[in-house]
Amino acid sequence: MSNAKAYSAASATSPLASDTIERRDLTETDVQIEILFCGICHSDLHAVRNEWSNTTYPIVPGHEIVGRVTQVGSAVTKFKSGDPVGVGCLVDSDGTCPQCKAGLEQFCPNQTQTYNSPDKHIGGITYGGYSDRVVVDEHFVLRVPPNLDLAGVAPLLCAGITTYSPLHHHGVTKGMKVGVIGLGGLGHMGVKFAHALGAHVVVFTTSPDKKEDALRLGADEVVVSRNADEMQKHTGSFDFILDTVSAAHDINAYLNLLRPDGNLTLVGAPPKPLEIAAFSLIMGRHSLSGSNIGGIAETQEMLDFCGEHNITADVEVIPIQKVNEAYDRLLKSDVKYRFSIDMASLKSE
Amino acid sequence: MSNAKAYSAASATSPLASDTIERRDLTETDVQIEILFCGICHSDLHAVRNEWSNTTYPIVPGHEIVGRVTQVGSAVTKFKSGDPVGVGCLVDSDGTCPQCKAGLEQFCPNQTQTYNSPDKHIGGITYGGYSDRVVVDEHFVLRVPPNLDLAGVAPLLCAGITTYSPLHHHGVTKGMKVGVIGLGGLGHMGVKFAHALGAHVVVFTTSPDKKEDALRLGADEVVVSRNADEMQKHTGSFDFILDTVSAAHDINAYLNLLRPDGNLTLVGAPPKPLEIAAFSLIMGRHSLSGSNIGGIAETQEMLDFCGEHNITADVEVIPIQKVNEAYDRLLKSDVKYRFSIDMASLKSE
Repeated sequence: MSNAKAYSAASATSPLASDTIERRDLTETDVQIEILFCGICHSDLHAVRNEWSNTTYPIVPGHEIVGRVTQVGSAVTKFKSGDPVGVGCLVDSDGTCPQCKAGLEQFCPNQTQTYNSPDKHIGGITYGGYSDRVVVDEHFVLRVPPNLDLAGVAPLLCAGITTYSPLHHHGVTKGMKVGVIGLGGLGHMGVKFAHALGAHVVVFTTSPDKKEDALRLGADEVVVSRNADEMQKHTGSFDFILDTVSAAHDINAYLNLLRPDGNLTLVGAPPKPLEIAAFSLIMGRHSLSGSNIGGIAETQEMLDFCGEHNITADVEVIPIQKVNEAYDRLLKSDVKYRFSIDMASLKSE
Repeated sequence: MSNAKAYSAASATSPLASDTIERRDLTETDVQIEILFCGICHSDLHAVRNEWSNTTYPIVPGHEIVGRVTQVGSAVTKFKSGDPVGVGCLVDSDGTCPQCKAGLEQFCPNQTQTYNSPDKHIGGITYGGYSDRVVVDEHFVLRVPPNLDLAGVAPLLCAGITTYSPLHHHGVTKGMKVGVIGLGGLGHMGVKFAHALGAHVVVFTTSPDKKEDALRLGADEVVVSRNADEMQKHTGSFDFILDTVSAAHDINAYLNLLRPDGNLTLVGAPPKPLEIAAFSLIMGRHSLSGSNIGGIAETQEMLDFCGEHNITADVEVIPIQKVNEAYDRLLKSDVKYRFSIDMASLKSE
């Protein structure tokens, strides 16, 4: 084992602060990565503050990791030193369950998450990407297309795959009419992907002042969801709607905008139960689904798609020393559209 | 036009009583049917009592119609006098919308329902199957396999297609694990179909005394849904669950029993909104769908499947004079599993 620099939180009420952690020695199939950027996901904040009541401290969050390979184990075949790579929400799974065999590692019951999961190698819990270095099995390391800006690639590893996966799974393609509810970290990626897939993209927002930005990101139309007349015009017309909103909102209003056999997929998780009128589903054979990140092969496919279409997240790059301030701003949705931590800033700690 | 005997209700608080109604003269594409049996659907009761606030009086309910062809229009090609036939919930649609072109007449915005819809031929509203005769365009008339008992065929035209369609649409087949929630008119058909399709069928019921009957109908297992331990054992294991319950119940408990990518489809419509926890959908990429009867081609497919597998509904045959009493019993779920009115009883009126 060897030391690595990191930012950790010591308790639910402690700020993130400089710390030293241990990373394991490389196994035959491991890849060592120098972390260059790490995105800030809202899940990081939930975990740091123990809002899901399952955090072990100290915690080093971060699952939107990009960097360069600095060393590989003797059996590693996919990577060599110097390669630009990414790591997302998962660093291990059992590889033998039906979900793993189907490439759906995100549903493996024995998965190891990038942080706050029991660490099978060195005990304790796994430490995430707010750090200068990480060691990960090559199966969970992704190739990053060389043409992309790495600061903007980092959020693809969670916000990117979270929105790409349901669009891909539900067959979004040229000519389809696709809605994206909410224009935050997830929503802005949903708009970029749906546009690149050739769909007619309609953004639903409660903020009329987001219209210009939505159009710039790839939306064809913007609907202010508080305007019932505007909503009504779209009744029965959507093939697919991606709901990225974590705050309470009326899903039925959107289910009624689906065409027959249309699907609405949730990637945001409002804290209270959703109230769904059965007729919103029965009439038109509508479906309401959920989706949770994506599998490893699909994440690679998403990154390759980003390379082809020159897609990255819109990021505000910050030094690690501003991470606590960034968390406060995240709570006010004061970021367009994702924070990306420049890990070079950790060198001065 | 010519007269037909029927049972109608004059208001939301009137009992059904003998009446005389008008049926149209045959157009070139019409089929005249002598009605032999008509099932009683819970929708009939809702409509008669104006519980959906859209009933025009007098109303003649009934959309589970079987009988024999007595006359055909000059352009009719599919039927001849003497053929056993059925008519379900629909008697017309526009034939030109995307839904009609896809064989999904049940989602046509210009459909004509079998009763209580504006009648495009003779004005007023359409009159249903509590009658001795009906005239229907041949596209909406179904062939009934000759080997089936007609009293038990009648409920197939609504309860049958309502449960067959989602099983078929979601690809239920040999080896799948399928749940059926509720064992009433819809549920008992769901069990028969899922069993005939080769699935491992688990019935969920609140009534332990329904176990024996569930097994007789084709269930492989019966779970008493109030028993949390019994429910727990099935976590993450179902490919598909058909929910036939119209009373309030906790859907999340069933969503959690789905395997990754599993689907739960509602065909019952509880009056209050369902409370759905977002994580019940997000974890495992579950889907919650609705389904509403089926298209005409699919209804024919269902009847042909019933012919092959010798499937009919379990019915209690009653004379039309007992229809009001049957409605009262329906409210107490006091029927195994569907009432079928023997329309010969109408001759004495």
